[in-house]
Amino acid sequence: MVSASAASTSHPSELHPPVNKTAHEFDKAVLDALLARRFFFSPAFEIYGGVAGLYDYGPTGSGLQANILDAWRKHYIIEEDMLELDTTIMTLSEVLKTSGHVDKFADWMVKDVKTGEIFRADHLVEAVLEARLKGDKEARGVKEEAPIEEADDKKKKKKKNVKSVAVKLPDEEVKEFEYILAKIDDYTGPQLGEIMKKYKIVNPETNNDLTEPVEFNLMFESAIGPTGQIKGYLRPETAQGHFVNFARLLEFNNGKVPFASAQIGRSFRNEIAPRQGLLRVREFTMAEIEHYVDPLDKVHPRFDEVRDVVLTLLPKDVQMEGRTETTQMTVGDAVAKKIVDNETLGYFLARTQLFLVKIGMDATRVRCRQHMANEMAHYAADCWDFEIQSSYGWIECVGCADRSAYDLSVHAARTKAPLRVQQKLDEPRVVEKLVPTFDAKAFGMKFKKEAGMLKEFIFAMEKEQLQCVKDELAKGSSTVQAPDGNKYEISSDLLKIEPTTVTEHMREFIPNVIEPSFGIGRILYSLLEHSYWAREQDKARGVLSLPALVAPIKCLIVTISQDPALRTLIHDISRKMRKLGIASRVDDSSASIGKKYARNDELGTPFGCTVDFASLQKGTMTLRERDSTAQLIGPIDTVISVVDELVKGTIDWKGAAGKLESYSGVQDV
Amino acid sequence: MVSASAASTSHPSELHPPVNKTAHEFDKAVLDALLARRFFFSPAFEIYGGVAGLYDYGPTGSGLQANILDAWRKHYIIEEDMLELDTTIMTLSEVLKTSGHVDKFADWMVKDVKTGEIFRADHLVEAVLEARLKGDKEARGVKEEAPIEEADDKKKKKKKNVKSVAVKLPDEEVKEFEYILAKIDDYTGPQLGEIMKKYKIVNPETNNDLTEPVEFNLMFESAIGPTGQIKGYLRPETAQGHFVNFARLLEFNNGKVPFASAQIGRSFRNEIAPRQGLLRVREFTMAEIEHYVDPLDKVHPRFDEVRDVVLTLLPKDVQMEGRTETTQMTVGDAVAKKIVDNETLGYFLARTQLFLVKIGMDATRVRCRQHMANEMAHYAADCWDFEIQSSYGWIECVGCADRSAYDLSVHAARTKAPLRVQQKLDEPRVVEKLVPTFDAKAFGMKFKKEAGMLKEFIFAMEKEQLQCVKDELAKGSSTVQAPDGNKYEISSDLLKIEPTTVTEHMREFIPNVIEPSFGIGRILYSLLEHSYWAREQDKARGVLSLPALVAPIKCLIVTISQDPALRTLIHDISRKMRKLGIASRVDDSSASIGKKYARNDELGTPFGCTVDFASLQKGTMTLRERDSTAQLIGPIDTVISVVDELVKGTIDWKGAAGKLESYSGVQDV
Repeated sequence: MVSASAASTSHPSELHPPVNKTAHEFDKAVLDALLARRFFFSPAFEIYGGVAGLYDYGPTGSGLQANILDAWRKHYIIEEDMLELDTTIMTLSEVLKTSGHVDKFADWMVKDVKTGEIFRADHLVEAVLEARLKGDKEARGVKEEAPIEEADDKKKKKKKNVKSVAVKLPDEEVKEFEYILAKIDDYTGPQLGEIMKKYKIVNPETNNDLTEPVEFNLMFESAIGPTGQIKGYLRPETAQGHFVNFARLLEFNNGKVPFASAQIGRSFRNEIAPRQGLLRVREFTMAEIEHYVDPLDKVHPRFDEVRDVVLTLLPKDVQMEGRTETTQMTVGDAVAKKIVDNETLGYFLARTQLFLVKIGMDATRVRCRQHMANEMAHYAADCWDFEIQSSYGWIECVGCADRSAYDLSVHAARTKAPLRVQQKLDEPRVVEKLVPTFDAKAFGMKFKKEAGMLKEFIFAMEKEQLQCVKDELAKGSSTVQAPDGNKYEISSDLLKIEPTTVTEHMREFIPNVIEPSFGIGRILYSLLEHSYWAREQDKARGVLSLPALVAPIKCLIVTISQDPALRTLIHDISRKMRKLGIASRVDDSSASIGKKYARNDELGTPFGCTVDFASLQKGTMTLRERDSTAQLIGPIDTVISVVDELVKGTIDWKGAAGKLESYSGVQDV
Repeated sequence: MVSASAASTSHPSELHPPVNKTAHEFDKAVLDALLARRFFFSPAFEIYGGVAGLYDYGPTGSGLQANILDAWRKHYIIEEDMLELDTTIMTLSEVLKTSGHVDKFADWMVKDVKTGEIFRADHLVEAVLEARLKGDKEARGVKEEAPIEEADDKKKKKKKNVKSVAVKLPDEEVKEFEYILAKIDDYTGPQLGEIMKKYKIVNPETNNDLTEPVEFNLMFESAIGPTGQIKGYLRPETAQGHFVNFARLLEFNNGKVPFASAQIGRSFRNEIAPRQGLLRVREFTMAEIEHYVDPLDKVHPRFDEVRDVVLTLLPKDVQMEGRTETTQMTVGDAVAKKIVDNETLGYFLARTQLFLVKIGMDATRVRCRQHMANEMAHYAADCWDFEIQSSYGWIECVGCADRSAYDLSVHAARTKAPLRVQQKLDEPRVVEKLVPTFDAKAFGMKFKKEAGMLKEFIFAMEKEQLQCVKDELAKGSSTVQAPDGNKYEISSDLLKIEPTTVTEHMREFIPNVIEPSFGIGRILYSLLEHSYWAREQDKARGVLSLPALVAPIKCLIVTISQDPALRTLIHDISRKMRKLGIASRVDDSSASIGKKYARNDELGTPFGCTVDFASLQKGTMTLRERDSTAQLIGPIDTVISVVDELVKGTIDWKGAAGKLESYSGVQDV
């Protein structure tokens, strides 16, 4: 904690002097009040009572979000020449049926058998068991650190109002509960049902029994067009919009992989029980990358640039043992040890670690947790989540999934569209193929309407399947089970399968997809918690230590008096800054300088300039740094240009101190 | 048309040499093929057959859209310190019930009585009458300009495949049809039904009768949450998100008007019959501004900056006379003559004219058409549309509506939220008020459950109403009709209404709203048509003359050979440009230079640099301008810096020619 009055031990020449933002200083209620008061975001249609899980961003929140997205665009799309898309939110139901979302994108819900109140099963189990463990600790007289308890209390209040009662549990049960909680994301609905039965988990408020867990699909439905007959869903992710356009993207990229498509846009999930503010909402902004890679070649050409980036890993085998401790390791080592499967996945983990820190996240509160087997989404072969710790616990903010060839395969099979890569072979190769030949007329007469479907099915067979059919035909006939579920007996006079040698010049494959997927609202909220602290001498004075890169306003310009000449000068300075693209705000109201700075410290504004009579007389202006409140002074145009460089990141505060003079005039504390 | 081979009559030193893009050069089929081939946009889920009215933007379209939005943000939000919002798409149905959209946001549809095919009534009438007028012209031997006929043919094909048959109409009927077409946007559903009966308008393809026009609400419905009981709609405009947050916005602006909120986001309209590509779609990006102004003070502080901007006006009284000719006039004159109602409305019309021209629209194909009485949306008191002419005709791209106090009033009445402005009066004023006083106990005993509602109703009465009740009470009792529809007789012993004088220090009012609303997809498509032309010597070589401001890629960097040293140099140059924030593309494939430039001319890339062996030996690079193909040459870093200035707009081509040398080496034509 930096105090402006005492001699500061942290160097005012550092841009971000270390600020002690430990848990016991953090008061979430005060932060929440600030975020509401300064209109970062608020419940949507609040004047109508609002709806759980829907939030509007005000000017401050919109500005912060826009800057985070701009940083994301530069870090990924521009830096790596990604192909940007903007696809529709409204999605034809057939697309999401094929992708598996209609059948599998669901959570488990339970209902109070009397009141009908609905809970999400896994969250309820988590809340109840945590409450019991807490009560057990109380009964045993185990002293928990007061602040964490307080944070947990708030967390529990937000979860389910599950009060903890001081009851000592059997040692065995404590172990079982801890084990269950470590694996909570891995249970199926029926398994949760068993846990609830075994440990008698009921509605904590009414004590009524709950129904068996039932699946609830998480997509919003709608109908397209005046007949209402075209069924659509609001997309739960932007990914499908990338995949169905793969052929066009590949053509745009001259037929070559690897390359990536990227999209920033709204997605929707009809959550059973939204909670935790911005962390679990029904409508949210995502930024998604689909990186298409040769399944046989997951080496990444730029991996060397990131191999020394340190990640904080929580692999799945650790969690399966019921433990939650993390290991710090460079991504180079993690890939070498096969903890992270391949360079491409490792590259994106490293790049994401760099991005989160760049926008201001506290690296000590970021970890990479691998999904356990049952928890993975239906389309994922492997998945690492960047979880960020806030007062709500460890929350997934970025998912890095290996979607293998799942999505492109299912869409290709359904539509017959060529969602694959064709690669010219360096050396042509000779391969033996088995080729079916039909006696067309006789085949058609025998199978009538089914003839076409059967032929297509046989033509699409893999070599091994054709060999089986060939072997059976040698004995007189082959019985084939077709996609329609029926068996068809084909005699050897109708179908011949002959080997032939073919020279292939080309290899064809379906690329694998590595998908970093960013929940922008969660990242934004976590960043606010990580950035917030209160000045020692006055807890009511909050500061958001946002990096200049993402701060909504970069520079505040204030004057101490209402003098018209000063006002003109201020607006002149503001115009100059605007021309340079620096987002600035003028405060020429009658409040004190200290109050003006305090009002903007809590918006995260990193720099402030005071214009006074000396400015009119000597043409100088002061420059204040938010966190340390240190000040410099210099000619107005020099100060403007220094602010420009500070905002662009080409110099830091030390560099600024080299271009201007130190100033210790009126303390604005 | 500029030919590179002949001595050019247009000066290559102009950045945008005048290009003759008249109608007879424009071949929409070729442009459409280009837009598809280069993945500007394509039908959503095309591999699934697509859905009418849903389009995905590919990398080129996304880049162009992002640049248009960035220009919009700078022109409006930043330039005028607007408060940006990001609100939810999913909207509680109650909000849109209150706003009037549930009841009134509809189009009229008619259905083929046999086949069930659905048409939008006004568009069908328009298509049929236009076809008959065309047939009449043919029959009379009136020669229409071939190109316009061609454009009209395509337009008709897209409308309804309404073939024109050469039949001479009675002169009277020709006049009637022209009159109807001029006023087509002004008819109600029943009026359209009468027109269809009178002129025997049936399904042009089947000749079957059509049903009476029936209203179809244009909003997509959905249900929120697991019970399905919270009804929601996808917003048809972003506006309501602004209005329900008005109190917070006003507080953010320190209680003062005028100010504006702004939002860029997706909106949805479940169109009856989408057509015309990007011009009538079911999901689209809007940019909307809600400017809140004192109803008694619509003077605009910055009007002087724009009073000389020329607008092309088509006022409502001209249209009501069945005419469509426009008048050119400065906005200063238009406001002075009350053609445009007030300075604030005029200010936004002028700023929008400037914006459209800035991003490259052809000003001769932009007009401002005022809405006629019946055509206005339910919330609008006045509305001017910026219509842009394309091969589809004159299409509304920006609507400037005066929404008066409608929206804030209805939301305030419904929710009792304080959506109004309080203004301190310079001089306090003394007013006489009437104050009701109840005998609380007796009133409660008399009216029981209704007592509360009745009291609230009476307290909320305007002075005139209270006076009526007072007068009736003087005769013994007053009968009051309450909001529940029932009449209540209140005797004079239960209620007294007494005059009292009050000193008011404050004025309270509901601000009026001026709303410029931009359809980004329509603007983008119109811009593409306005920018497209084909080189004289080779009609297959299309050029998009997009201003550098909005072009997706600013600079192409090419080399003539595959030499590794040149490749390294090219990527080095690309990196330097990236650091300056210049979006560039490298083409180091084996195609000819001319082909590379042609491929990028059709993406609208304004500048190109060729790197060759001279670059390695002498450190020079050429710089080519897209439209004229004129070339300059200079040291590599100088050229890079010139490109930077050209892209930023701080110099034009003439300025560039002043910093580099002319180059007439190998013609890349």
